[in-house]
Amino acid sequence: MNERYDIAIIGSGPAGLSAALNASIRNKKFIVFGTKEISNKLVKAHKVNNYLGFYGKSGKEIRDEFAKHLEEMNIEITEEKINNIYAMGEYFSLMANDKVYEATTIILATGVNFGKLLKGEEEFLGKGVGYCATCDAPLYRDKVVTIVAYNKHEEAEANFIASIASKVYYVPMYKEEVEVDSSIEIVNDIPLEIKGETLVSKLVLKNREIETDGIFILRDSISPGQLVPGLELDGSHVEVDRSMKTNIEGCFAAGDIVGAPYQYIKAAGEGNIAALSAVAYLDKQKRKSA
Amino acid sequence: MNERYDIAIIGSGPAGLSAALNASIRNKKFIVFGTKEISNKLVKAHKVNNYLGFYGKSGKEIRDEFAKHLEEMNIEITEEKINNIYAMGEYFSLMANDKVYEATTIILATGVNFGKLLKGEEEFLGKGVGYCATCDAPLYRDKVVTIVAYNKHEEAEANFIASIASKVYYVPMYKEEVEVDSSIEIVNDIPLEIKGETLVSKLVLKNREIETDGIFILRDSISPGQLVPGLELDGSHVEVDRSMKTNIEGCFAAGDIVGAPYQYIKAAGEGNIAALSAVAYLDKQKRKSA
Repeated sequence: MNERYDIAIIGSGPAGLSAALNASIRNKKFIVFGTKEISNKLVKAHKVNNYLGFYGKSGKEIRDEFAKHLEEMNIEITEEKINNIYAMGEYFSLMANDKVYEATTIILATGVNFGKLLKGEEEFLGKGVGYCATCDAPLYRDKVVTIVAYNKHEEAEANFIASIASKVYYVPMYKEEVEVDSSIEIVNDIPLEIKGETLVSKLVLKNREIETDGIFILRDSISPGQLVPGLELDGSHVEVDRSMKTNIEGCFAAGDIVGAPYQYIKAAGEGNIAALSAVAYLDKQKRKSA
Repeated sequence: MNERYDIAIIGSGPAGLSAALNASIRNKKFIVFGTKEISNKLVKAHKVNNYLGFYGKSGKEIRDEFAKHLEEMNIEITEEKINNIYAMGEYFSLMANDKVYEATTIILATGVNFGKLLKGEEEFLGKGVGYCATCDAPLYRDKVVTIVAYNKHEEAEANFIASIASKVYYVPMYKEEVEVDSSIEIVNDIPLEIKGETLVSKLVLKNREIETDGIFILRDSISPGQLVPGLELDGSHVEVDRSMKTNIEGCFAAGDIVGAPYQYIKAAGEGNIAALSAVAYLDKQKRKSA
């Protein structure tokens, strides 16, 4: 049996971290998924003056203060990308690249940088379109796979799948130099549409088309509707009430993912609320089962 | 004509201050009412570990960081107590002890420490019960006035009214030594109920009764329903939506006043949202009148 966390926090920006502090203070067993960099968006911020208590600090300096705070409280960030979360009734199953995590409650704090869906992406999801190359690799033995990657660190995924598939096309959506196995064909073009009959058959790009059996779209974060099937959305944001509760029992959300204003202190405040709502939910579940 | 502020912020705790930062950054003409101490509640906090970015700091140390932030941005706190706010349609009138302020929008951030109403207080409000001794003093020339004071600094109010009324009873609800004019009778007792026919006639205390024409109840903050007539409440909290909007156009609220969890980072996050909502409202008004 998998160990079960009380609270799984997906995202390591201000909302996720603020939630983590409260989960820790309330003595819950929790895990935070994200990056030890904390938040790319924050790091890139030139100067933040509206985070009460910090004046004139750059995003990077504020990130360092957050990192120090985590360190003081012995909170670690688990560098795993969660590709799918399923509500199992009593708990949630969180699918990482090569592992499954379980948690009684989840807090979604993945931000809004999930980009626009490709035409056909939703239609062919699970029918040749996937978000985790490593997970689905066995399906593509000796087949043709195309990877659309939004981050350089996806190159490892491409290399792995190249050892299984007969052919791998790699479409880099980032600016850094691409360094992948020589067997992989790099396609510097803009993906427009996914086509097929019942299953994916090709990726249409601006200047060419690729015949392919599978397409992996590897973004920094996955749109909330794709991440948690059944989640109620308000446009591209997760619908929550003032206690940061979503429509799914035990599932909370905080930060940019629940809507504007996209501000650090707002996200941190919501992370606090979400964590305390999760704690209240856990306590209620415990009383029920007692 | 009074000068008109774009935004009046009532309260100088984390919600009010966070709102002020954003009002300032957005170049709005604003005023913050509160105390230069910032927040008594915060100052008394032993240690706050869940304000993301600060670890192991006492409430006082965090207060000092907030004060530094305000100073860097040249934000001043106006030490006036707002006793009543009236929605005038296009703007709000804010009644301070001896001055009226005007603002197009208001942000209520006065916290929850307004205490329980006395029995009969609501019924006799405006019929002998008041919250501002200085304002209503002329009504009590040569009459008997009782002051129930929750803070030592109300002693000045008592002294002032003693120069007008025929008799002043002073009921201190605080622990510090009472220092008032010798003409004032200090009553060390617990007020229970206000009685009368159409107008107030007496204050019932635990151990005695006082015949009185007027009763001033001077708390650190006034309950939101008393402060802003017509404001929709949810129990003792102000009802808001996720944009921190109340039922009154142009009136926003943030922090403990809108409900639990009573946490600093939550309050600061809400102050941010409230200010940006007020800014959006102001911009819309401006477009309408353009």
